[in-house]
This record gives sequence, structure tokens and C-alpha cells, in this order.
Amino acid sequence: MATIRDVAKEAGVSVATVSRVLNETGYVHEDTRKRVTGAMKNLNYSPNEVARSLYKKKSKLIGLLLPDITNPFFPQLARGVEDELQKGGYRILFGNSDENAEKELDYLNTFIQNNVVGIISATNNKSKTNYDGLSIPVVFLDRTSSDYPSVYADGKEGGRIAAGEIVKRGSKRITLLKGPAHIQPALDRFQGALEELSRSDIDFHVMSTTSFAFEDAEKWAKELFSMYPDTDGVLASNDIVATAILHEALRLGKAIPEDIQIIGFDDIPQSSLLFPSLSTIRQPAYEMGKEAVQLLIKLINSEPVHQQHIQMPVTFIERHTTRKVDTNG
Amino acid sequence: MATIRDVAKEAGVSVATVSRVLNETGYVHEDTRKRVTGAMKNLNYSPNEVARSLYKKKSKLIGLLLPDITNPFFPQLARGVEDELQKGGYRILFGNSDENAEKELDYLNTFIQNNVVGIISATNNKSKTNYDGLSIPVVFLDRTSSDYPSVYADGKEGGRIAAGEIVKRGSKRITLLKGPAHIQPALDRFQGALEELSRSDIDFHVMSTTSFAFEDAEKWAKELFSMYPDTDGVLASNDIVATAILHEALRLGKAIPEDIQIIGFDDIPQSSLLFPSLSTIRQPAYEMGKEAVQLLIKLINSEPVHQQHIQMPVTFIERHTTRKVDTNG
Repeated sequence: MATIRDVAKEAGVSVATVSRVLNETGYVHEDTRKRVTGAMKNLNYSPNEVARSLYKKKSKLIGLLLPDITNPFFPQLARGVEDELQKGGYRILFGNSDENAEKELDYLNTFIQNNVVGIISATNNKSKTNYDGLSIPVVFLDRTSSDYPSVYADGKEGGRIAAGEIVKRGSKRITLLKGPAHIQPALDRFQGALEELSRSDIDFHVMSTTSFAFEDAEKWAKELFSMYPDTDGVLASNDIVATAILHEALRLGKAIPEDIQIIGFDDIPQSSLLFPSLSTIRQPAYEMGKEAVQLLIKLINSEPVHQQHIQMPVTFIERHTTRKVDTNG
Repeated sequence: MATIRDVAKEAGVSVATVSRVLNETGYVHEDTRKRVTGAMKNLNYSPNEVARSLYKKKSKLIGLLLPDITNPFFPQLARGVEDELQKGGYRILFGNSDENAEKELDYLNTFIQNNVVGIISATNNKSKTNYDGLSIPVVFLDRTSSDYPSVYADGKEGGRIAAGEIVKRGSKRITLLKGPAHIQPALDRFQGALEELSRSDIDFHVMSTTSFAFEDAEKWAKELFSMYPDTDGVLASNDIVATAILHEALRLGKAIPEDIQIIGFDDIPQSSLLFPSLSTIRQPAYEMGKEAVQLLIKLINSEPVHQQHIQMPVTFIERHTTRKVDTNG
């Protein structure tokens, strides 16, 4: 690979001159500048970004911390982050925290040590002390924060919409599944649904669950139908849990959506691949990733930011686990 | 954050001494070394990795290039890469190439500019010129290469196994779906299946397809059943395509696995979430990621490598889209 010395030789100038062109410092005659950039092009020369970041005290690296890329909600989110960063010439340093505070801190430290200029964090760890005292901008993603800029979906509204839709479509004995208590977005959607159901005159049960893992969800699905065999509508805590409920209902020979309606939450890609395909509340994961990057880049460039907390809209995706609304009233 | 000056002050030594301790160069008395490391600990001092990588000419960064993280095969692969890199204290610089040669080259350049010490590439771009002339180790993942070290699953054997299993389980009029011609792993599995079917005395059709996208696969599924309405066994090019076939068969009122058996390829996480759950050939994505890292780290450390090309075993995962084998013969 060509070095700065090769470029200087090719252009017939000193290394210091090439350096001035590279770093846009000091005076360089226009003709000389053209000779140098021409030589760089001829030799396919790439300036060393690390050396440059030390010199300019600015890198083009962003740290991205996710709970777990194998959770099907996050690849879309990560892709939105990457596509938007790429437009600005930024690159991603990437880690999974597994919601483990120590692992999170470890990644944050190495992000800083590698001179990232900003961090996007989608972890759900309650303690924010890991982020205090950082001298670079941080944007939280899929997580509300009053102390830091953040981008998140309107979970409460999502819960309200899901409850409203299942009631409107005629379920009379609804089971509302409450997600893990330590995950704020799970609580938000639960509270929204609870609020809406309480306003209606429909009977409903609340069933608490402690994780989003499919293996656990299979057990809750069995429990649900043994405790409430005549439930005719389920508001699941997310799409993975909804999938387990759907399977158990099919196993029990229930007709979907005639005997029982099911609404998920998230709209992960596989929800449209189920049979029958899953009606759900869509969080715009890809767009949330892009939005977080736009906010972060403004903060990095010290541009004015009108909104530090961006709440993204959620929408009902009507598929085949809910009945059609009777439009004749 | 503490600086090297703070450490020197706390330890009562010069900055140069702290630097010698950090970089393990020159003589430092054991007591002094202990005072310095103690001060680092007290102050929670993290040496600047970028400065250190310039000095030592070694970073702890690895570049990871995937086709697309939103393709459900890749999150597991990426997770295997990350978990294994983390053990060695390495960090990931991450990008998606979208199988676009220009984007691939762009990422490779910025990886190099950021002083990565090795690259793992899972792209399927035929031209390898992007990688020629790199002075750091490269391992190809999920891709065979005679020129570079590589880790990949035994696709041909996978095709053979799938064909053997569907024949053993009694399908008589099999449809073999051939995946996109420009993707080598798709060709491998096709050729393996073709070989095995040709050895049997069973009738079969070959149907060519050009992508792994679900929307396309839905069209092929309809086409398949209109051209070969009495097919009673489908060897799909991957799990996404198998999912589309499964849905279309259910829509047509076929009983699975009684009327028709279906075998996928990959064992992506959602295959176990389908109903009926999908029998498939498992590629050990997570383990392949780990294996690629182990190979890469050996190359980085110039350790002896006995095998430059690591072929990982594939296995038949029996679920509910295939019949039980009649063990009474």
C-alpha cells in the first residue's frame, strides 16, 4: 500500500507539503495541491485514519451497543443505524451487552479508547452511571431517558391501539400478557393496553411473564389456555410470545381468528411469515435507527437540536390473526 | 477521565516512566511498576488505544463484513464472531456490503485506515481482487476460497443428506429447488441433492429460482404447485423459500407431512417457530463465526495453522414437515 512518502515522491514535493494538503492546514499553492491529490489518486493512496484522528482529535467512528443482535428486533434497528451512518462516512464499532452492566461498561471503555466521536446505546440497563462523565454525545435508542437524548417508539400508544383494535373486532374475554417488569418498553405497552381495556366494558385477565424467550413463552401459552380456556382474545407482550400463543391455539384446534384473536407487538420480520400471519403493533425499528443517527450527528457537530427526545409513531398492522372490522356497524 | 499525567503525579514518577510501564519497553524497577499500575487502578485510568495502536502498530480491532445483517442467517454468525473476539479483547468494526463490490471495497478501505489487524468477510462477491495486496490476514466465512483461509459449511453434504432423508421418508415425486446461480453455497447444496436423487430411482423435477427473498418465494410456491400439483416432497433452497412453500401447501389444504414433505436449509431461528415447525439442514452459524475468529487470531499472531480451509459439518434437524422413518423397515 502507498505511503505518504510515495505520494511526496510521485508529486515531487516534500512529505510536509503532502501532510498540509491532507490536513488542510497552512498554505499550499493550488497547482501543488492538484499535483498532490493527483499523485494520491494514481497511487490509490488512503490516508491513515488513525493518525489523522489523533492529529485532528476527531475520528469517524461511532460506538453502537445493542442488547443482543440475535433478538429479531435488533437487526433492522442496526441496519437503520448503519445505513444512515454510512451516508456521513461514519463507521460502526459494535458490541452486544446482553443487558450485563459490566459488559456494557467494558464496551463503553473500549469505544472511548478507540476515539469514537459518539455512542448509540440500545441497552436497557437501569443504571445510567456508566454514561455519566463521558465527554462525547450519547443517544439512547429504544429506551426513554430524561437525562440523555433518546429515540423510542410510543409504547403506551401502541398498547392502547392494540387493546382498542381487539375490542373493536369483537373479543369479549381478553387476556393481557404483561412483559418483563425490568424492561421499560414492555411496561409502557402494558400500561397503555390496561388503560384502554379499563375504559371498555369488556372482561379481561392480566397474566405476568418474565422474559421474551420463545421456550418460556411456550410454557405460558399452555398455562394461559389451561387457566382461561375460553379466552377469545390475547394481547401478547411481543411477537415472539404471540407466536407461542398462536401455536398453542392451533394445537388445541382453535380456529384463528374465528375462535380467538391474537395481537403481537414489534412487527419483527418473521411475523409476516407465520401462518396465519400475525396482526401486530409495528415499531419502526429501521427508521428509529436512522433517527438516532441523525440526532447523534447533530450533537457531534454541535448543531442546534430542537428535540432531544424523539418519540416515533407506532401503527396497527392488520394481518390474519384478527377479524375484519364490520364496516356496516 | 484520568490522563497519563494524572497517573504520573499519583505515582510520583515521570510521564516517561508511566509510558515505559504501559508499553512494556525499557527498564522499570518492579516497585515503580507496582506504584504505576496501582495509580492506574486508583484513577481508573484507561490508556488511549489509538495512541497505543500507533505506537505498537497493533490495534485490537477486527473488520467484519457481512452481506446483510437483516438476513436471518447472519445475526447468529455475527454473534459467534463477537463472542469469540470478545474473549481475546478484540473489538468489531462492522459493515454490510449488500453484495455490492463498491460498497465492499469502501468498507475494506476504511477498515484498513482504522488499523484493523484482521478481517472476516462473509460476502459472496466473486471477484477477490478487493482482497489482494492486503498486508493483514483475511478469513472468508460462509464462502469457499482456494486463495484465502476460509470457514464454511459442507453444503454438498447438506444437499445429499436432505435428498436422502426425503427419499427415505417415502416421497416419490420430488421437486428440487435450485437457488441463485451466483451464490456458491446455493449451488453446492443443489449439486449434492442432485447427485443423491440421481442415484435413487425416484422421479424428480428441478425448478430454478433467482433469489432468497420471501416475496419472490411466494410466487415460486404458487408456480410450483400449478406446474407439479402432485409433488409430494420439496427440497427447498433455504428456509425462507421452504416457509413460502409451507404456507402455499397449507393454503391449498394439503396435510403436512402426510400429503407433502418439505425440507429447508440453514436452520434460521424462525424455522422452529413455524407451525408445523420446519425440518431442515442445519448450518452451525454461531460455531462457524467462532471458528473463523480462532483461525484469524492464529494468523494475526503468526501461530502455526494446520488447516487453512475449515469445513463445518451440517446435520438434519427433524421437525414436523417430514414423516417419521418407519423403523420396522
